[in-house]
Amino acid sequence: MKIYEGIKLNKDVNTAHLYLQLYKALKELIIEGQLKQGDRLPPIRKMAVLLDVNNVTVVSAYRILEKEGLVYKKIGSGTYISYDSLQKNTTESIGINTIKSTTSPNFLMDQGHIHIEENTINFASATPSTDLFPVEDFKEVLNEVLERDKGDAFGYQEGQGYYPLRKTLKEYISYYGVYTDVNNIQIISGAQQGIDIIAKGLVNYGDYVMIESPSYTGAMAVFQSRGAKIIDIPLKEDGLDLESLEKKILTYKPKFLYLMPNFQNPTGISYTLEKKEKIIAIAKKHNLLIVEDDYLSDLNFYGENNATLKSLDHNELVIYIKSFSKIFMPGLRLGFLVAPKNLYANLLMAKHSTDISTSGLLQRALQLYLEKGIWQQHIKYMEHQYRERFEEMVESINNYMPKEVTYRVPKGGVNFWLKLPSGFSTKELYDRAIKENIAFAPGNLFFLHNSNTPYFRLSIAAVDKNQIHQGIKKLGKIIEIYINKNSKDHNKTNEYTPIL
Amino acid sequence: MKIYEGIKLNKDVNTAHLYLQLYKALKELIIEGQLKQGDRLPPIRKMAVLLDVNNVTVVSAYRILEKEGLVYKKIGSGTYISYDSLQKNTTESIGINTIKSTTSPNFLMDQGHIHIEENTINFASATPSTDLFPVEDFKEVLNEVLERDKGDAFGYQEGQGYYPLRKTLKEYISYYGVYTDVNNIQIISGAQQGIDIIAKGLVNYGDYVMIESPSYTGAMAVFQSRGAKIIDIPLKEDGLDLESLEKKILTYKPKFLYLMPNFQNPTGISYTLEKKEKIIAIAKKHNLLIVEDDYLSDLNFYGENNATLKSLDHNELVIYIKSFSKIFMPGLRLGFLVAPKNLYANLLMAKHSTDISTSGLLQRALQLYLEKGIWQQHIKYMEHQYRERFEEMVESINNYMPKEVTYRVPKGGVNFWLKLPSGFSTKELYDRAIKENIAFAPGNLFFLHNSNTPYFRLSIAAVDKNQIHQGIKKLGKIIEIYINKNSKDHNKTNEYTPIL
Repeated sequence: MKIYEGIKLNKDVNTAHLYLQLYKALKELIIEGQLKQGDRLPPIRKMAVLLDVNNVTVVSAYRILEKEGLVYKKIGSGTYISYDSLQKNTTESIGINTIKSTTSPNFLMDQGHIHIEENTINFASATPSTDLFPVEDFKEVLNEVLERDKGDAFGYQEGQGYYPLRKTLKEYISYYGVYTDVNNIQIISGAQQGIDIIAKGLVNYGDYVMIESPSYTGAMAVFQSRGAKIIDIPLKEDGLDLESLEKKILTYKPKFLYLMPNFQNPTGISYTLEKKEKIIAIAKKHNLLIVEDDYLSDLNFYGENNATLKSLDHNELVIYIKSFSKIFMPGLRLGFLVAPKNLYANLLMAKHSTDISTSGLLQRALQLYLEKGIWQQHIKYMEHQYRERFEEMVESINNYMPKEVTYRVPKGGVNFWLKLPSGFSTKELYDRAIKENIAFAPGNLFFLHNSNTPYFRLSIAAVDKNQIHQGIKKLGKIIEIYINKNSKDHNKTNEYTPIL
Repeated sequence: MKIYEGIKLNKDVNTAHLYLQLYKALKELIIEGQLKQGDRLPPIRKMAVLLDVNNVTVVSAYRILEKEGLVYKKIGSGTYISYDSLQKNTTESIGINTIKSTTSPNFLMDQGHIHIEENTINFASATPSTDLFPVEDFKEVLNEVLERDKGDAFGYQEGQGYYPLRKTLKEYISYYGVYTDVNNIQIISGAQQGIDIIAKGLVNYGDYVMIESPSYTGAMAVFQSRGAKIIDIPLKEDGLDLESLEKKILTYKPKFLYLMPNFQNPTGISYTLEKKEKIIAIAKKHNLLIVEDDYLSDLNFYGENNATLKSLDHNELVIYIKSFSKIFMPGLRLGFLVAPKNLYANLLMAKHSTDISTSGLLQRALQLYLEKGIWQQHIKYMEHQYRERFEEMVESINNYMPKEVTYRVPKGGVNFWLKLPSGFSTKELYDRAIKENIAFAPGNLFFLHNSNTPYFRLSIAAVDKNQIHQGIKKLGKIIEIYINKNSKDHNKTNEYTPIL
């Protein structure tokens, strides 16, 4: 095992993710010939213990090596080197060794894009299960569009988006208290692209950008990739810590503040109306641009006020990102921005350099779908479906989670943010749960400084009522065993991020 | 007019495009109150002469001001200020004044995304007219997919792309002499996204990137937006100038070289096989990564060898970008990359942070379309259509262009690269032609250093046979008048970029 002890992994968040580091380190050993054709790699668990990382990290690293044909698996026997360093050619030195990774892979996991065994109950994915999608209705509008528009449906669209769709969205968004002009709407290929375009249009290398802590990993990855310096502001129960916000605005003069004020991801927190208004006032005072990511405000189960920041903004301070992924269909890859007039040109140019325009066929189909008014019915249906799951989730947590696990019941959305007793690690819990076919998202994914937090996120998007019941029951037991087994010899001084 | 004389436009390419600069300058005058509600802006031509810019520049600037509600048009009378600076609020100071534009808008024009009057003959657009699209076939596969996959068609796809599509593409690409593994294929939402993802995955702020000169404006915009330093290598008749290439590789150690070796955009040049092989050898010698943008190699009318670089690459030196936009349907927004194994992880992460995944519905439909083998028929059809246009174009140029206008007949594709007698300006020609309802792409768009070149690009993608005949006849006359009128008092020492 001596050869592996030389592997040094940098566990700081701003460097490449652990599994990529491990992959690269192993690849180097293989290419240099220190690991030879036919050698067996250590078993997953042994390697994990040796390097003090998760099993998942090792599995992921081995998987990439396998994809690259450097190793192969023998069922029941292990993973073996298939590469012969004597056949080494010049190309191996190109590429990954000289090219720094510019994006973080954490959010693959946030999106549920991790390899999960077939029969796993998946609380990790925030992506709705496909049986909820309005397929038949959509098929109808697709055919109507093809009949009506013929080849035009497949041409390039205006970069800003298909005009009739923007007109329809102007009306749609007025249901959410946002009154805007057709020209301020920019169609995007999903909310992720919205974040990407905003970063491209507004952020230059070395600029400061502010986020909530914790926040959406996919946004952090984009800002990092632009070379931005990210400043995180702690979240409190009712939204951002305003004192910290104002102080940091003055210190860093950020390009913008990225927020999810309703059913925040990952915490599920909804900002109070009072706090939203204060944030708008602060933005006005300091000329601060706000990017509001409204990924889910439609799923408001308890009828409380969940105004968007954009609806409170009378001074063009907010860029509003609306995704249809959670409510309609993620595979559509459609959403839109409402942007202040003076940013129009920058965002349009960024959109163009990103993918020229969004699929015309899908834009036309969504336009017709919205125009027909079917969406209101569908949202009610989704609300009903999610609410059933939501209530099952609350009940199951109350019934099956050890009382040491704490959380706040969110007011809607799909995410639950739970906390282990302090000193226990959700990474460790993740390793235990995944072995029992339960997946969730460990809290460290969502923090800029990837410390070992006691938080974890359970999402009800991809699991049905029955799975929720079974899954939480099982997870409750796993946690109970983990806590009890460890509490005797447990060191209570273990650090964790002190928020919420 | 005194107020306008203070407007200083920076005509260097690396700053924002002229029309945006003008727009911003005028906006400032309006907001500061130097131009007051009810004031009339100078007529287009007067303003153009005053600032020594194209009419189009002024038109575009006025249009944005109008969109923002700062000015309005009175038919037959002019453009008037509608903004009252006394009502100025704080928000005006946010945004465009403090945010540098990070992308260049030139390629909006390259894509034909410029405002063009209804009855204009459009040689500017390289986008195929929509009547060529295989709408009926595609409708059939769409319905088959929806029937077969139901909601799954709308779920998120694997970030790398729908597996069966990648399998089908592996086979498809073998028709083009590229033999690769399913795992090396990355699905993208169009070629533009391919360039964007490669830049995101591989280019960091301050890195060097090499391109052909002239080159595709959409690629330059992306590299600039990443903060890359762009080095351009002159094109010769048979492809890149190799001496300049090797020298610059040694000087700058670029991250990669971006090329279009078949029917290059904008010049229409096809590299000779000999030159392609030499470039591969140089890449191997210097460990240089090549990005090959194959936007059109299918349209090879004269059966000559148009091997892709990727098919000549046995050392994983080439990232290959294949677009379906010209051959199938641009509105699909689909394409794929074939990448060396060691870049797999970087590109996948960049794809994720860009838009998570490409529309599942469209991926599944394209897969079925390709699997059914209909594409071969369609390519033959497109080849036939384009060849008819191509031959009409060659004939019309021979018949109607003044002999002072020179060009090389390309071996395929849709772009013709013509040259005015030296000293004449295609910008000036553009202004004259657009008044007569003929649009084309002035050559300066395609050069990194936006000098006033005598070159211009005519594309046959969006014009039918009859329009080609009429359009070239008319353009020939316009050029004749321009050349003759000016040749008396013309200064022959005017500079232009000395390539081709």
